[in-house]
Amino acid sequence: MISSILAAGGALDYGQIFTSLGLVLVVAKLAAELCERIRIPAVLGEITAGIVIGPSMLGLVEPSDALRVLAEVGVIILLAEVGLEMNLNELRRVGRASMLVAIIGVVLPMSSGVIAGKAFGESLNASLFLGAALAATSVGITARVFGDLKALGSTEARIVLGAAVADDVFGLIILTVVTRVVEQGSIDAVGLISTIALAVGFLVIAGAIGLLLVPKIFAFVGAKAASPATIGVLAAAVTFGFSAAASGAKLAPIIGAFVAGTALGRTQQHHTIARDFSILGSIFIPIFFMQIGIDTDVTKFFSTHVLLVAGVLTVIAIAGKVLAAAGARGTKTDKLLIGIGMIPRGEVGLIFATIGVSIGVFNDELYAIVLLMVLLTTIITPPLLRWRIEAGRSALNDVETAEVTEEPEK
Amino acid sequence: MISSILAAGGALDYGQIFTSLGLVLVVAKLAAELCERIRIPAVLGEITAGIVIGPSMLGLVEPSDALRVLAEVGVIILLAEVGLEMNLNELRRVGRASMLVAIIGVVLPMSSGVIAGKAFGESLNASLFLGAALAATSVGITARVFGDLKALGSTEARIVLGAAVADDVFGLIILTVVTRVVEQGSIDAVGLISTIALAVGFLVIAGAIGLLLVPKIFAFVGAKAASPATIGVLAAAVTFGFSAAASGAKLAPIIGAFVAGTALGRTQQHHTIARDFSILGSIFIPIFFMQIGIDTDVTKFFSTHVLLVAGVLTVIAIAGKVLAAAGARGTKTDKLLIGIGMIPRGEVGLIFATIGVSIGVFNDELYAIVLLMVLLTTIITPPLLRWRIEAGRSALNDVETAEVTEEPEK
Repeated sequence: MISSILAAGGALDYGQIFTSLGLVLVVAKLAAELCERIRIPAVLGEITAGIVIGPSMLGLVEPSDALRVLAEVGVIILLAEVGLEMNLNELRRVGRASMLVAIIGVVLPMSSGVIAGKAFGESLNASLFLGAALAATSVGITARVFGDLKALGSTEARIVLGAAVADDVFGLIILTVVTRVVEQGSIDAVGLISTIALAVGFLVIAGAIGLLLVPKIFAFVGAKAASPATIGVLAAAVTFGFSAAASGAKLAPIIGAFVAGTALGRTQQHHTIARDFSILGSIFIPIFFMQIGIDTDVTKFFSTHVLLVAGVLTVIAIAGKVLAAAGARGTKTDKLLIGIGMIPRGEVGLIFATIGVSIGVFNDELYAIVLLMVLLTTIITPPLLRWRIEAGRSALNDVETAEVTEEPEK
Repeated sequence: MISSILAAGGALDYGQIFTSLGLVLVVAKLAAELCERIRIPAVLGEITAGIVIGPSMLGLVEPSDALRVLAEVGVIILLAEVGLEMNLNELRRVGRASMLVAIIGVVLPMSSGVIAGKAFGESLNASLFLGAALAATSVGITARVFGDLKALGSTEARIVLGAAVADDVFGLIILTVVTRVVEQGSIDAVGLISTIALAVGFLVIAGAIGLLLVPKIFAFVGAKAASPATIGVLAAAVTFGFSAAASGAKLAPIIGAFVAGTALGRTQQHHTIARDFSILGSIFIPIFFMQIGIDTDVTKFFSTHVLLVAGVLTVIAIAGKVLAAAGARGTKTDKLLIGIGMIPRGEVGLIFATIGVSIGVFNDELYAIVLLMVLLTTIITPPLLRWRIEAGRSALNDVETAEVTEEPEK
């Protein structure tokens, strides 16, 4: 009773909420630490741990709206952090290569995904969603892997990051369009154009406000603010506000969070903001990935159909992105490294699958197929990247033997 | 639709949640900045701003469970921060004085409050709650005010902080007991003893685990952890876990958070944890105080009865704590300064009133009375403290004229 201190309605059980929260954080951290030791991305460990403690296995944590709100705060912070990391000027220099890699990397896997879906007997709507889920590179995982391998400063990394951002945005526009098409039951040209106009309009207006106004507001507030915490709080408010605006334009909130991040990255105080968001993220981002696992029914993996379709989609996912590296033609880069860097699908693919489930176009089996494809592309990337980067470095060493090689692992 | 990404049930409207959240953070910060300029505690501005944007005035933000969960995370972080600040060894040195100040400071205002409540024609149950709401000093506000005046290092500050902590705990035990008594309809000796045993048992066991085990766990994890974020996340998990355990012992979750904070304060990594919690707190604590305002119906203040009773209770609140400073007899301290330092009631008084409402013993009028008393005691303290500290410093200057006076304000 006393635990429901603030809930005049008595609907919130804080004892249960904080038990779940404490358990989720401890288990997420244990899983992440374990994964980092055996060189698997921490995010995989968090999703797996969510499956283990969730209702599909141990049942220690029940899904709840409280956990979902905190998880959504987590993914908002994640995309804002990715936006913050983007140096827009450096991105612009590799802009053409990134854009080509992104376009090919969306068109190839998506069209192959739709064809594969139809070939496996799925409906056109379900096939469209499968294709869309194959389109978006997970910029969070990509950046994390390059960062872990201390290769973030390379031209390859910049092209990959730029392309990943672009096809995240493409992918989410595609998702919005596909969702509307599915929900309306038929392809409606006016509705489709207005959807695209609304989505692109949001990006243009939010981008303009973000790049022109936000840095000025922060410069003003920075000069006037009495409390040092003001900047971090204002940055969080801008992030949540942009997320709400994206939601108003029928885009995913995370798109707004990403645009907010790029805007915050151009403020004088971007280092302070990045530090504050990194601490917020360390608490809330694992909740998001655990939540995915908690909502996953793992028993659905164990069917020939799921394994077969997920296997084919994974091959398409890998081949489509590796071939997309051809878009970087004319730059002095390792094309295969760029292609490998584009492979991970991560959270955006899962978001697509979750939306597919929520509007009824995906059943649990298709969700399981996408989840397995995401797991496989995420697992395969770090060892491949490591092999390619080390191979490149030793080739460089053969040419310039005097140069001290940078240690590839910390 | 797309905004409900994670809510398979579709119950959560993230567009609305993030709109409210963004608005609450911006308005809270504006209010806090304004208050700091006119030398009013920021917390007052946040509560007032909550009243203004809440349903009782502008109606820009509707109360929601999502906001309540985030607010509760805020008050949990606040109490954990207060616990972290406590140097248990230094507190122990002024332990006897603190304990006496705390006991007198609970007994005097509570007994006077009960008598005043009965005199104004309230029921015994309501009078008991009024008395309980007068008992607890707000250690957060007290620490904040001493900190702002750069007087945290003085013996007076330590005695006040120790006493505030002790009577927070006394007050919450009293609240628990009073609540059980009210809910059971009569005073049941066995139930009362078991309630006290459970509450004290939690404090003893949690205190022992916190002081003996938690520092060892953190030393172990600190030596083994691969990721630098692990310590902050683990600290948050411990805080939420202790809050859940307190809730299980029928105490308020914040008591668990405070015990967790004192334990975390004894880890090797307490500076890192304090920094992480300070950033989390800067985002979430204002949500808690805004939420109080959003839930307050300000029109209830405008009645002769409310103003009269709140006025009398405020006099009792001030007199009770100032007289309680007699407990510091025998120490070489400014007793009036100690007494003034004990005046603010703050969030704990409001929590009492909220619980009173939730179990039906308080009506909106009594809630308004307590809220007004809290506002008055909180408003009156900073100028009184400043006057007394400056008077003490100038008296010191008359004796030691050669000494450079510390600037009382930053």
